[in-house]
Amino acid sequence: MENPISIQLLDKAVEELHRLPGIGRKTALRLALFLLSQPEEMVEKFGNTLIDFRKNIQHCHICHNLSESETCPVCASPRRDKHTVCVVSDIRDVMAIENTGIYTGVYHVLGGLVNPLAGIGPSQLTISHLIERIGQESLQELILALPATPEGDTTAFYIAKQAKVSGIKISTLAKGIAIGDDLEYTDEITLGRSLANRTDFPV
Amino acid sequence: MENPISIQLLDKAVEELHRLPGIGRKTALRLALFLLSQPEEMVEKFGNTLIDFRKNIQHCHICHNLSESETCPVCASPRRDKHTVCVVSDIRDVMAIENTGIYTGVYHVLGGLVNPLAGIGPSQLTISHLIERIGQESLQELILALPATPEGDTTAFYIAKQAKVSGIKISTLAKGIAIGDDLEYTDEITLGRSLANRTDFPV
Repeated sequence: MENPISIQLLDKAVEELHRLPGIGRKTALRLALFLLSQPEEMVEKFGNTLIDFRKNIQHCHICHNLSESETCPVCASPRRDKHTVCVVSDIRDVMAIENTGIYTGVYHVLGGLVNPLAGIGPSQLTISHLIERIGQESLQELILALPATPEGDTTAFYIAKQAKVSGIKISTLAKGIAIGDDLEYTDEITLGRSLANRTDFPV
Repeated sequence: MENPISIQLLDKAVEELHRLPGIGRKTALRLALFLLSQPEEMVEKFGNTLIDFRKNIQHCHICHNLSESETCPVCASPRRDKHTVCVVSDIRDVMAIENTGIYTGVYHVLGGLVNPLAGIGPSQLTISHLIERIGQESLQELILALPATPEGDTTAFYIAKQAKVSGIKISTLAKGIAIGDDLEYTDEITLGRSLANRTDFPV
């Protein structure tokens, strides 16, 4: 909303909040007025926490996950299997897999997917570092946990081709119907794959 | 999203963003990662602008509008008619009326509406200050520009009753069908009022 008799401090605050993805001008104004209604210390904590976060967070030098120190908590943990590496696109995928609570290996965060249309080539991702890790850390298995999209498939194929020469075991996430899904509402490609890759029923 | 192997800086940033109204945990995480992808100076400017905004903004001592100085730009302007006061609930209403570009008087921001159910009585609003202004500034007209809701009507009635004794002219926004509205889709109460308060056709 343009403000003919403008209050600069308010305009600037709205402008900054409007930079955030998905926050339009009206929402930014609502957020600014919310901050105004809060105690001064709360807003100071809000701003300083975010500044501090941006300034002090790093990427793990081994797996490129977010970290407060040079090595992330996963890579630093003595309880994680360092010979199994789960390759993901984004740090949000690390969180999603950690939330399952069943993965005990380590990660490698690519920082995106190969996407020629968006101008992202393999050299902009951490793929060459991953290939180095295979030899240096004597890895035994790469789990390609990439999205089931054309970009995810391209990236997985590219990595698998490069990694294959080292003789490492390469696996990928199982594709099939989701737990709780109705067959009726499952798309035909997923259902077809699920049928072709059927597994033995555990009796 | 809970993060079993947690990165404190990230958790704290997500926590702060999650305080904002309408921002859930997943959105907060997305916003935090967006800030991480921005240059450090940008995030510093973001945080400091908001802190600065909260610290330095004031309420106009005349009309309670937001202001950078003691008197807001509307009250300070020599081109505004100081004898006509538009009474609104919220500073967003000031912005909305300023955006019409046709109002030349000044404002009085109540800071809410009388709402006994939410425990808001007249004493928590700036009503007594408004009544003082009527005498002190020799006002000629109060325009009650309050929402067309039960709370808005209650507040308007309360103010009108107190202001009437001074003999000041009291007006309210015209109620009727909105420009561009189809009669078919207008609610019957609005349409009924619109019919009862019909105006001369300008020939």
